[in-house]
Amino acid sequence: MTEPRSDELTATPNNEGVDEAVAAARRVINALLHAGDNTTAEMRPVADRLNAVAEYLESHAPSIDERLVDMWAGEGVTRHDPITGPENAIAPPLALTGHDDGSISGEVTLGLPYQGPPGYVHGGVSAMLLDHTLGVANWWGGTSGVTARLTVDYHHPTPLFTPLTVTGKQVRVEGRKIWTEGSITANGVHTVTTEGFFIAKELPRPR
Amino acid sequence: MTEPRSDELTATPNNEGVDEAVAAARRVINALLHAGDNTTAEMRPVADRLNAVAEYLESHAPSIDERLVDMWAGEGVTRHDPITGPENAIAPPLALTGHDDGSISGEVTLGLPYQGPPGYVHGGVSAMLLDHTLGVANWWGGTSGVTARLTVDYHHPTPLFTPLTVTGKQVRVEGRKIWTEGSITANGVHTVTTEGFFIAKELPRPR
Repeated sequence: MTEPRSDELTATPNNEGVDEAVAAARRVINALLHAGDNTTAEMRPVADRLNAVAEYLESHAPSIDERLVDMWAGEGVTRHDPITGPENAIAPPLALTGHDDGSISGEVTLGLPYQGPPGYVHGGVSAMLLDHTLGVANWWGGTSGVTARLTVDYHHPTPLFTPLTVTGKQVRVEGRKIWTEGSITANGVHTVTTEGFFIAKELPRPR
Repeated sequence: MTEPRSDELTATPNNEGVDEAVAAARRVINALLHAGDNTTAEMRPVADRLNAVAEYLESHAPSIDERLVDMWAGEGVTRHDPITGPENAIAPPLALTGHDDGSISGEVTLGLPYQGPPGYVHGGVSAMLLDHTLGVANWWGGTSGVTARLTVDYHHPTPLFTPLTVTGKQVRVEGRKIWTEGSITANGVHTVTTEGFFIAKELPRPR
């Protein structure tokens, strides 16, 4: 694995237009939920317009196998994961930064697409953000692995529409075993904490 | 809480066009990742077209407060969560069905937006699917709760582009404490199993 060259743990774009298009897709996802099913918006023409965009993109896409090779080219951070990926409209996205003490952190504010209980972040979304953050913390810490066990403790509901701080830090490595911790903080309170147990290995990249 | 009236644990739409529009948005999310950042597609015009759709929807949307009341109207299953929600383009969506033995299950095939390791489902996505499935299993079992601790064990990588079975079952209720289990199965093998510990309460719905 190459050493991190920067404390910004998100890859830079190859094509600025892609990031704009994905940001616009995020806005559509949010607006669909915001308008909802009692809106006066005409939804069938919206479906037609979105399907036309999808058709255009699909007609300019390589095969899935070619795309998998391309998206995994290089050995460092990637741009497509569902948490930090600038190319993945499902990702909020969370932007993570590495620190000198071995920890990493990022800020993110989550809206309607990430809702669980009324007005709060879905517990599964918190688990997803933390699992990914622990994985990146392992990479930043110098020993990457695959998750063997993730334990997530929910102390308080995590609010939507509020800046959240997500942190992770590799705390121990013994042979191939890795232990890593993380948290989500809102308004100065740890709402969710997590412990991950990882095994040091990486699945092969397609070539 | 109202009793489930059907074994289909996804609400029916108020407006068929919404589901079509959200399905088209899912197709856009997928196509953006499939086309990627080395495509010959012109991404800036794609961004413009998507922003125009978002503007149209936003101009027909109520205030967030009104929308939150509306989306939480009724006491049963909802349509907006990020796992099963037909109105949420982030949701694959997973469709869950309740069974007479108290368990629930659903099938889903995940594509590029849900990728973690090359060709496999992101561990955080598996955790998200399972957290939600355990929550619905609690509702089906008769005692709903909020997640206090979620433990997720990863036994094997979970493949993309492969039908997955997601299951959940409430196994024990003692006073306000609830224990619930679940799994993800691919090609006949349990790839991920989970145990959830819940506290029986529900956060208030906005009115």
